[in-house]
Formats: sequence, structure tokens, C-alpha cells
Amino acid sequence: MSSSTPFSLPKVPALSKQLDTAILRKLDAQTKPPGSLGRLESIAAQVARIQQTLTPRTDHATHLVFAADHGVTAENISPYPRRVTAEMVHNFLNGGAAINVFCRSNGAQLRVVNAGVDADFPAHDGLINLPAGPGTASLRRADAMTARQLDFCLSTGAEIVRDIAAEADIVSLGDMGIGNTTTCAALMCSLFHWPAEAMVGAGTGANRAMQAQKSQVIREALHLHRKQLDTPRDILRCLGGFEIAMMVGAYLQAAALGKVILVDGFVATTAWAFAQAFEPEIHGYSIFAHESAERGHRKLLQQLSVKPLLLLNMRLGEGTGAVAALPLVRLASDTFCEMASFSTAGVSAA
Amino acid sequence: MSSSTPFSLPKVPALSKQLDTAILRKLDAQTKPPGSLGRLESIAAQVARIQQTLTPRTDHATHLVFAADHGVTAENISPYPRRVTAEMVHNFLNGGAAINVFCRSNGAQLRVVNAGVDADFPAHDGLINLPAGPGTASLRRADAMTARQLDFCLSTGAEIVRDIAAEADIVSLGDMGIGNTTTCAALMCSLFHWPAEAMVGAGTGANRAMQAQKSQVIREALHLHRKQLDTPRDILRCLGGFEIAMMVGAYLQAAALGKVILVDGFVATTAWAFAQAFEPEIHGYSIFAHESAERGHRKLLQQLSVKPLLLLNMRLGEGTGAVAALPLVRLASDTFCEMASFSTAGVSAA
Repeated sequence: MSSSTPFSLPKVPALSKQLDTAILRKLDAQTKPPGSLGRLESIAAQVARIQQTLTPRTDHATHLVFAADHGVTAENISPYPRRVTAEMVHNFLNGGAAINVFCRSNGAQLRVVNAGVDADFPAHDGLINLPAGPGTASLRRADAMTARQLDFCLSTGAEIVRDIAAEADIVSLGDMGIGNTTTCAALMCSLFHWPAEAMVGAGTGANRAMQAQKSQVIREALHLHRKQLDTPRDILRCLGGFEIAMMVGAYLQAAALGKVILVDGFVATTAWAFAQAFEPEIHGYSIFAHESAERGHRKLLQQLSVKPLLLLNMRLGEGTGAVAALPLVRLASDTFCEMASFSTAGVSAA
Repeated sequence: MSSSTPFSLPKVPALSKQLDTAILRKLDAQTKPPGSLGRLESIAAQVARIQQTLTPRTDHATHLVFAADHGVTAENISPYPRRVTAEMVHNFLNGGAAINVFCRSNGAQLRVVNAGVDADFPAHDGLINLPAGPGTASLRRADAMTARQLDFCLSTGAEIVRDIAAEADIVSLGDMGIGNTTTCAALMCSLFHWPAEAMVGAGTGANRAMQAQKSQVIREALHLHRKQLDTPRDILRCLGGFEIAMMVGAYLQAAALGKVILVDGFVATTAWAFAQAFEPEIHGYSIFAHESAERGHRKLLQQLSVKPLLLLNMRLGEGTGAVAALPLVRLASDTFCEMASFSTAGVSAA
């Protein structure tokens, strides 16, 4: 790919409203007081609208975990050493991480993407090995990545989703990358013009002093790059990271293909915010799974005017919050498909 | 059973704390930042504590729906006719109700209990047919049930749980009974000395005038029975209903047998509040599934100092909220059982 012709992002069409009346009529004919399933009815309607059918399918869910290293780990912003990113990828491939259990327990297919980890991995069925490099540069000292790397990430994320599209009614994305809550805080502060303090939280467990350091690093990064943070692409390129940029491409492709998108916590929502900046109609395809305990996430969800399904004080990453909410989406869809109506069940209406 | 010797309720022992240190040590050794799975870690610890093992099981869940009619339906307190209780029991047996889909979608065994519906039912594999009568008397005009009927309900609820105990790691209860939010509001107002208005809500869809009528009926009922509402048993007997009383017996037996209890919304929590009034240690065995949109439920949860897992604006009954939360309990338990530790996975700690 030539660096002079940037990758054309997938276009996301507005959802058709053609079935909306039929969807509501079906919901209200079912043997329950109208609206009594609350948000599950909204989710059912949304899934039906995305798939443009009164009998939506949610059996097949694929969860992609994108892993990458971050140059900002040189700035003392995480209690965990950088090598934990690679160690956790091995843990994913061996089936021992939280996300492995979550995907097994809730019936999702798991694929791990090496988007740019500072390590080599042996070939493995569960691994998609397409690194953009051995980690980004530190956003405090240089552009996190080149324009060519950004294009590679955006196009590769889209390509990975095209490859798994046939097997997936629902697509969810997760992240692994020591240092990536610092990267995401910088990205969101730049995109929404927020002060560093608004987005900095504990991440994997940074104490107060380390959080002050995260804020300082972000302030210096925003100052260093201030003359080139004009567009979402510029922001992604200057501040990183590889896994975030791949997730942006993946979200856009998933929506373009009419998939139901389940959005996880702070890192996943950061990537989603860029996808929405490029293609606003992605909103209609997206279900927000949970509100993370990571400090910036609530403000970010408010900014995006979205209300997640779960509030369980989780802050692990890997997409665990998204996969935790998967059974609720299936429950909503199954109920919409399978419940009897007042007339067929012979139940008197109000 | 003689009416002079009331049924001895199952005793609920305090949970042992013997494993608590080992449970916490196991949680913190797993490959995630300590505490990063939030409430799922608390749920895992609770399930392990209930089962007194570091490898808890949650595969087998049984959901019991108790159905009964309420004399208070004569007082114009519901938009649905009384016969809907029986019609919905047929809907349950035919597999078409919301709770049928919920149990299929989330892998729970469903049993329907005729606790006192004003109808006859043909024999059916899924039906436990043990009615205390054809419905209670109207609490506004008479004692809802006799002491003998109350004893029958409490002992039958316990007996039903003993019968399904071998097949169930988790027990959840649901309700069906036109008029039963009026019954439950009266029960809670009596037990906690609240005014009628505090507990009256829309139920299956009562409008403002009908809700005012519900409040008036409850005020008159509390006045009528004021001299005999001394003990939880008295309150249950005077105000009803059959399904609530059976659920009280079922909750107590489930805890006595060391089952994990998943508590549904307004009606189920009302029954649970009586179970707790009899045996306070039931608290340790119980996980609150959701906060219902039925108005009194939030106040009731606050009174009981419990925080439910889900807030989805549901208000259907049948135990749908409990079964909706079942995958979260399994997820918590599976993760606790199956995640790798830092040392076995070769992942560096913080």
C-alpha cells in the first residue's frame, strides 16, 4: 500500500426503519404487559433492526482480542512491566486468561490478534499474527506510529473482520496492552478537548503518584503534538496505539457488514469513539456492554450519549465486559423470536 | 397436619468462614489485576463460601414458578382479568411465555407449581400440582387464608425444593398471580410499617386511578387486620397469597440445603423478606438478580441492604430477572474455577 493514498475506511449506512412498526407490533403482541421486559425489548428491537428481520439470530458470536505494546511504558505509568503484554498473549493462547473462560462460559469464539507486541509468537490456530511493529513510540517523545503503520492497522482490522464475518452474528472486541489506558486517555483528551486529569485512572492498578505521572505524560504529549492533532487520523497516528487503530478498522467493517457490535470498556470505547468520528451511523449497530470502573469511562459514555447494560465494577480489559453482556443480547433476541402472542397462547389481554 | 402444631420451618445455619482466606488467596493469584473483575469476584467468593469449596459448581439451575390467584382481584386493582393467571399457567406448560424462553436460553430447568390457581389443570410433566385452594380470600374483607393453608404452603414450598435439590446447584423462584403486587405491597407495608403509597406501583400496568385504588384497598386491609398482624406468620396468613407463602418455605429449604439462591424482583423479594424474618442467615446464600421497575422494589432492596446485579427496567415477574442474571453467576464461578494463576501461566505480577 502506498503511503500517499490512505486506506479508504468502510462506509457505514444508516439502519433502515422499514421494519420498525412490525418490530414494535410483534413485541406488544407477546404474552407480557407491554414494555415489561424493559431494556431487553430495546435490545431485541435493535438486533432485529440491524439484521432487518423479525427472527434475528445471535447464536454465533466472535470475540477478537487485539494486543500491542506501547512506547509510553518507558514513562513509568503502569505497575506491570511491559513484557506482561506478551506473557498475556501466551496466556490467551494457552486458555488460562479471564477472557478465555468468559468466551467458553458464554459461547463466543475467541481469536487473538498480535497487532504489534514486542515479542515473537509461534504459529497457533487461535492467533492472527499481523503486527504493525514491535510497539509504538512513546507519545511523549515522538509520533506513536507512521502514517503507513496507521493505514496498515486500519486496513488490517477491517480485513480481520471480513475474514470472520461468515461465522459471526455478533462481533465484540477486546484489548491487551500494558500502558494502553494512558494511550487511550491521551486519545480521548485530544479528540474531545478534555484536560488530562479527566481521563486518567488506575488502569491495572496505578497508585496516586503514578496517576499524576500519567497525567503529566499526557499533558506533555498533547503539547508536543499540538500542531498536528487536527483530524481523527492525525490523533491516532501521533498518540497510538496499534491495537486501538486496528479496533477502529474492525468496528467500522463490522458495522459495514451489518453485524451486531458489543462494545466493552474504556479502551474499546476509545476505539469506538474514533470509529464514530469517521462513520456516525455506527451508533445504530452498537450495544454498550458495561460501564467500567476505570475512571474516564463514565465521562466517555456520557459524551457518547450511550447507556451500557452492566455496571459491575469491572476493569480488567480483554473485552471481558462485552462477553459478560453477551447472554443478555441473546436472551433479548431469543425472547423476541420465541415468545407466544396473546392470540396464539389464548391469554386475555389487558 | 394438625392446625395446632404449626410446621417447623427449615433452619438456616450461618455460612462457615473457614475457606474465606483461601478463596481470597485464589482470587488474587489469578492472572488479572487484583479485584479487577469487580462484583464477579464477590459473587465467585460467595458461591465458593456457600458450597465450601474452591471449585464450585453452577451447571445445574432449577427455576420454580409458583402461581396462585388472589381474592383481591375482586377489588379492581389490575388491568388484567383474574383468569389470566390460569391462562398463563397453560402458556408456561406450552412453552410460550417469557420465562420458558429465558430458561431455555440460559440453561435452567423450569418447573411450574400450581400453588392455588382458580382452575383445574391436566397432568403435565412440568407441573407440580399442589394447590392450597382456588385462590385466597380478599385481604380487604377477610383473612386471606387459614392457618392450616399457611402451614400447607410453607411445608409444600419446602418439600418441592427437597424434591428438586439433587438436580440443582442454583435455585431461583418466580411468581404468577394477577393481583399479587397488591398482595405484596400490603405484606411489605405490614412487615416494615410503611404507608401503602410507598409500595404501590403499576404492577402489570395499573394507571394512576387504579394505583390509588390499590393504596385504598391496602389501607383498608391493614386497618381490618390491625389487631392480628403481630408476627410474620400472622401477616402472611391475613394478607396472603398462596404462592408467596410457598416461596417463603422454598427459600428457607433451599438455604438449609446449601443452595445458591437467585432472588428475582418485587414479588420474589417480598417472599424473601419473610424468609429472612424467619431465618436471618439466609442472607449469605442469596444473590439479588435485578432491580425491578415496579415502584416499591428499590425501597425494599434498600431496606434489606442488598444490591442487585442488573438494572434493566424489567417488571414482568415469572422470575425473569433472576434467570436473566444466571449467566453472570455461572461466569463468576467458572472464572474462579478455571483461570490460570500468575505462577502457572508465567505472567509477571505487578
